Amino acid sequence: MNEQHNPWFETTVQQLNDPQNQRVWSVIVSLFGDLAQDKGARISGSALTRIITPMGIKPEAIRVALHRLRKDGWIESARSGRASVHYLTEYGRNQSAAVTPRIYERRAAAPGDWHLLIAEDGAGQATLDEVLLLSNYVAVNRTTALGHGPMPRNLDDLLAAGVNSMSVPGWLKARLFPDHLQDACAALQRDLQQIAPPPAGLTPAQTGTLRTLIVHRWRRVVLRHPDLPPSFHPEDWAGEACRALVFQLLDRLPQPELSALDAQTE
Amino acid sequence: MNEQHNPWFETTVQQLNDPQNQRVWSVIVSLFGDLAQDKGARISGSALTRIITPMGIKPEAIRVALHRLRKDGWIESARSGRASVHYLTEYGRNQSAAVTPRIYERRAAAPGDWHLLIAEDGAGQATLDEVLLLSNYVAVNRTTALGHGPMPRNLDDLLAAGVNSMSVPGWLKARLFPDHLQDACAALQRDLQQIAPPPAGLTPAQTGTLRTLIVHRWRRVVLRHPDLPPSFHPEDWAGEACRALVFQLLDRLPQPELSALDAQTE
Repeated sequence: MNEQHNPWFETTVQQLNDPQNQRVWSVIVSLFGDLAQDKGARISGSALTRIITPMGIKPEAIRVALHRLRKDGWIESARSGRASVHYLTEYGRNQSAAVTPRIYERRAAAPGDWHLLIAEDGAGQATLDEVLLLSNYVAVNRTTALGHGPMPRNLDDLLAAGVNSMSVPGWLKARLFPDHLQDACAALQRDLQQIAPPPAGLTPAQTGTLRTLIVHRWRRVVLRHPDLPPSFHPEDWAGEACRALVFQLLDRLPQPELSALDAQTE
Repeated sequence: MNEQHNPWFETTVQQLNDPQNQRVWSVIVSLFGDLAQDKGARISGSALTRIITPMGIKPEAIRVALHRLRKDGWIESARSGRASVHYLTEYGRNQSAAVTPRIYERRAAAPGDWHLLIAEDGAGQATLDEVLLLSNYVAVNRTTALGHGPMPRNLDDLLAAGVNSMSVPGWLKARLFPDHLQDACAALQRDLQQIAPPPAGLTPAQTGTLRTLIVHRWRRVVLRHPDLPPSFHPEDWAGEACRALVFQLLDRLPQPELSALDAQTE
């Protein structure tokens, strides 16, 4: 069965595609995170192919990427008659779930609930390095980490200070939001702004293609900068504008049922 | 005229005296700060002698110290008939006034109203060094200063964070309250605890001697550590116990009128 011809769909896929950064395994991770993250969720090989090939990715490249993801323990595959089905392993689901709250958070970070952890010069930095492995911390300088959420326990070697206001210098904004990230973010904003409202009549697979592309572009921005309140943003930071555009578009492209994706294959 | 013989006075002077650290000019600075800090306040040479000599300091040493304080711009001296009078210069009054609030503060520092200033590694430390010249800041490490009071302006190079709670590690307590300070403080506490309540009938000069000794010992402790809330104190820190004992004793030895000190000379 051929996909429905839809000029809006083809234009939009081109606008969202980022051929420079199209690692197929990473696209598949975005796809499973968005469409089939729940335990028990399975996607057939043919649904995968129909979602991904419109991005200009060949079936052979999808097979290679699936092989790699199986080897890395992210995905398992099974046979169902003549068809193959793929699903996240428990490890894959956990990895995916770990970043889901940040990717799908609709509101920008609030200024409250932040703390600073400060180490002694020299020896104390080892303790700080451990803290910085946690996703809710960013490095301010060699001896200072900024984090949010509850204050950690058992950090006897660090000065821990709950913070109720912050004034952020330029060097720290530049450190947390480097130029290449600002550029990627501005490019995403430009691309999202050019997209016309989705027409009626998209197939479930086309919706899957578009959602995967949007989430894939967005996660490459949102997961590469810390989730910090507006006072930390450089002037002209497009991240929050992107966030609004991303969810405006996702809301117009509701997640297709997995059964609807598979129904197309029959 | 001879001073009244008073065994309690002699014992107490011995308990409070710290012959190892008896720089006479510094004792005179404590004396003026306590008894004659106001503009226009003057102390006669004979009153000075009667207040200081019971500490075991010879009149010749007082003359040498006064000479040094005049040379350094702290004190001026004048003749009044056959008698000499001494008073703080404007510079001396300002120096004295700058530390008076901390010496005479009856309450320990409160935990509120603190902020951290954090510099970039390397270049940013120069800005921090300027901040650390201010009396309301202490260094936490090479890139961090802790201060209280209103947040400074024009510190664009520093991350400024208002703080609402702090948990203080051992290395920072040891840095802010080093052993020699803890020892001096414990010794003062011991000495103050041994003093019996003052009897009636002390002369104004005797009261001046005792107040000067108490303030002199206390300022050498209180001005050598930052004024920080209890969570910063090492275990067994005697500073707040000293503070309570100091004001208990000073309240029982009310400041003598300068006219009463001079009346004794006639």
